[in-house]
Amino acid sequence: MSDLLTPNSSFSLTIRFEVPNRPGMLASVTQAISTLGGSMGQIDLIDQTRAISMRDITIDAASAEHAETIVQAVKDLPHIKVLDVYDRTFTLHRGGKISVVSKIPLRGQADLAMAYTPGVGRICNAIAEEPQRVYELTVKGNMVAIVTDGSAVLGLGNLGAEASMPVMEGKAMLFKEFGGLDAFPICLATQDTDEIVETVKRIAPVFGGVNLEDIAAPRCFEIEARLQRELNIPVFHDDQHGTAIVTLAALTNALKLVNKNISDVRIVINGAGAAGVAIATLLQKDGANEIIMCDSKGILSNDRTDLNPQKRSFAVDQSGNLADAMKGADVFLGVSAPGVVTPEMVKSMATDPIVFAMANPIPEIQPELVKNDVAVMATGRSDYPNQINNVLAFPGVFRGALDCRASTFTTNMYLQAALAIASLIKTDELDREHIVPSVFDERVAKVVAAAVQRAAREDGVAQG
Amino acid sequence: MSDLLTPNSSFSLTIRFEVPNRPGMLASVTQAISTLGGSMGQIDLIDQTRAISMRDITIDAASAEHAETIVQAVKDLPHIKVLDVYDRTFTLHRGGKISVVSKIPLRGQADLAMAYTPGVGRICNAIAEEPQRVYELTVKGNMVAIVTDGSAVLGLGNLGAEASMPVMEGKAMLFKEFGGLDAFPICLATQDTDEIVETVKRIAPVFGGVNLEDIAAPRCFEIEARLQRELNIPVFHDDQHGTAIVTLAALTNALKLVNKNISDVRIVINGAGAAGVAIATLLQKDGANEIIMCDSKGILSNDRTDLNPQKRSFAVDQSGNLADAMKGADVFLGVSAPGVVTPEMVKSMATDPIVFAMANPIPEIQPELVKNDVAVMATGRSDYPNQINNVLAFPGVFRGALDCRASTFTTNMYLQAALAIASLIKTDELDREHIVPSVFDERVAKVVAAAVQRAAREDGVAQG
Repeated sequence: MSDLLTPNSSFSLTIRFEVPNRPGMLASVTQAISTLGGSMGQIDLIDQTRAISMRDITIDAASAEHAETIVQAVKDLPHIKVLDVYDRTFTLHRGGKISVVSKIPLRGQADLAMAYTPGVGRICNAIAEEPQRVYELTVKGNMVAIVTDGSAVLGLGNLGAEASMPVMEGKAMLFKEFGGLDAFPICLATQDTDEIVETVKRIAPVFGGVNLEDIAAPRCFEIEARLQRELNIPVFHDDQHGTAIVTLAALTNALKLVNKNISDVRIVINGAGAAGVAIATLLQKDGANEIIMCDSKGILSNDRTDLNPQKRSFAVDQSGNLADAMKGADVFLGVSAPGVVTPEMVKSMATDPIVFAMANPIPEIQPELVKNDVAVMATGRSDYPNQINNVLAFPGVFRGALDCRASTFTTNMYLQAALAIASLIKTDELDREHIVPSVFDERVAKVVAAAVQRAAREDGVAQG
Repeated sequence: MSDLLTPNSSFSLTIRFEVPNRPGMLASVTQAISTLGGSMGQIDLIDQTRAISMRDITIDAASAEHAETIVQAVKDLPHIKVLDVYDRTFTLHRGGKISVVSKIPLRGQADLAMAYTPGVGRICNAIAEEPQRVYELTVKGNMVAIVTDGSAVLGLGNLGAEASMPVMEGKAMLFKEFGGLDAFPICLATQDTDEIVETVKRIAPVFGGVNLEDIAAPRCFEIEARLQRELNIPVFHDDQHGTAIVTLAALTNALKLVNKNISDVRIVINGAGAAGVAIATLLQKDGANEIIMCDSKGILSNDRTDLNPQKRSFAVDQSGNLADAMKGADVFLGVSAPGVVTPEMVKSMATDPIVFAMANPIPEIQPELVKNDVAVMATGRSDYPNQINNVLAFPGVFRGALDCRASTFTTNMYLQAALAIASLIKTDELDREHIVPSVFDERVAKVVAAAVQRAAREDGVAQG
């Protein structure tokens, strides 16, 4: 792992140690850490006497094993006393990451009488008489349910509802930070399609929108379609549409760089799960004419008998493996597995190839291996240029949909969201290492929300 | 209504008006308001020139009609220009009363990498490997679901899920304010017992406890019993047990005042719904031997054929109406309907009668009518002494249960909670107008939590 991964904050630890207060002692610690490839951050002096120095040193490692190796090496140094080792990621998660708070102070009986009984009864009656007022007088209009069954948690697999919670809480943080939205995790103790649909419909009154998350394919397609049809609030499966929107945004700018048109290029998508199918659908909506999809068994070809309906709708006459598909292709989009693409495959592509290796955390091919063979490279990682990160899409998408009380999402809303993200990179800023804005670019959610709202009105699904 | 109710903040409004800047103008406004019985609060000077004064005046009215009458009277004054009228309760509810916030700042890639991908994956794996760590590493251990089907919203009836939301949001505020707990409204689009049970079980992974709220009897009994049995987190129906706990707390102190023992007194409970049944059960646990329950058809007597199982378990050999039941009774506990008790009925009770008229917002009998005929009087209202308010119980009850990871609630936990509340009124503070602490007494939740936790450990239901 440490060969493949660079040190990053997900394996960040803080070591508190005491050394004799004399020259060279701190240097021996930093030396040991840097020899092992640990990336040092903050170094705090906690206490110092004539005899000793106590310090906290924060280190990013490349993996849990790498972190342990570093800690052991520091412990093994002469004269050092390691007092404590904090895993910063675990420390940060203690007690959870979100909180439900009151927007209004409760200082005395008068506040209680307005916010709770008896005053609240007037608000209840007002909503009972005019149901639409629930949007005005409750949290509904700003509240998103983050729904998962824990069946496809990140790239980790079927971990179940409880183990999915840290992801959903993190997602709720992102909704608030980037979209100003309230969002709450709904982690379900069922993985049955009918039961999931039923449950979400029953809890829907509180929510203005539903974000489906980390639900395995192909179940996720039916769940999304049925909820979209049976609820009058917008339903979004982020693993599908969030990924598709950001991929299209990045591809739009990458194609500008190589002067190719989406309608002319040959695009290979590796991975025919939730993300792959959604990307293909959105690319077609934007005019892509030639898409070849592959799954772990190779090209989705018409002569295969093992395809589910979603895969079948993208089947082509060509057959073969991924290497066959990539020969002469202009674009490779990977939403599959680590290391499945070789440098040879990339070299077999058309001139100025575009490669998005988006498998997480380890891409389909390490960017370093084909640095000089591609026109544009993107990954899902923050430590390489051109990060394809859903955070660019979902906060603005929901902000826009909730602001106009969209009853549903349309593909046009996704398309406009993608083009809005792409539009933030001006022609003179466009560079092979800069095809998408930073997730911390505050303009992103705003332009996405505006584009989504506009599209919702065009499509006649805005209700407010 | 305005004859029965005193002005209160639930009908609070603010009038912004402009008058010529000369003596006597403000006085004419306050005069008009006080003549009509409006209770004035804050008066703010917003703007003043040599020609005019602009002010905001806040007024509590007794009902919506009363508020309108006051506004009209002010508008009818000469020389006045009413610029705006705000209904403070509606203004306060705009956009809802709660918010989901992040406990941790997201300032850059390092924060993202720890709180979200890829770092969060390590936390997910840790929980998948050791499921109990969900309590340590997520919000679960501090999170309560406030579940309703909207079938018995306050005293207003079956208003449905959407219209119940303002109450559930208010409840979430109280959980935070008084118990330091996170709570989230789950307002269900079903009123079917099986579906409610099923749905709550499916969403349970996120929650450390379930508070059932405003679910109609007798459905609420089965829902609570089944959830308590089938989930390993504590389930509490506040309308039952919250009311029972605070009633017993108040009764304990009232009996001290009249020197009677709970095992000796004759107690009439009027109302055999959720609250009445729970009160009777808890009183028995505390030693009450003689309880006569009534519903709208009179005494629950063994010769009646229309009783559900909950009512049947309290049936007695005596029969008759409420007036018959009250003759010679020591205690009357009303959880029923406005005005069903007459002064004559109270006068027919034993010496030093205790009357808790807890129907909301209008009690079974107005306290003024029997002021000199009772030893102790309590109501559910904040504008009379001795308010029986569930806020005294549920925040501490859940705080205690969650702090020790109770798997369930026991009647002993409720009993200890009641005695803890009662214990806060020291003997020398005890007075017929002071039998329970104020809801703003910060000791309440703490002593309740400690008592509940102790009882949970005694009963072997504490898991952490």
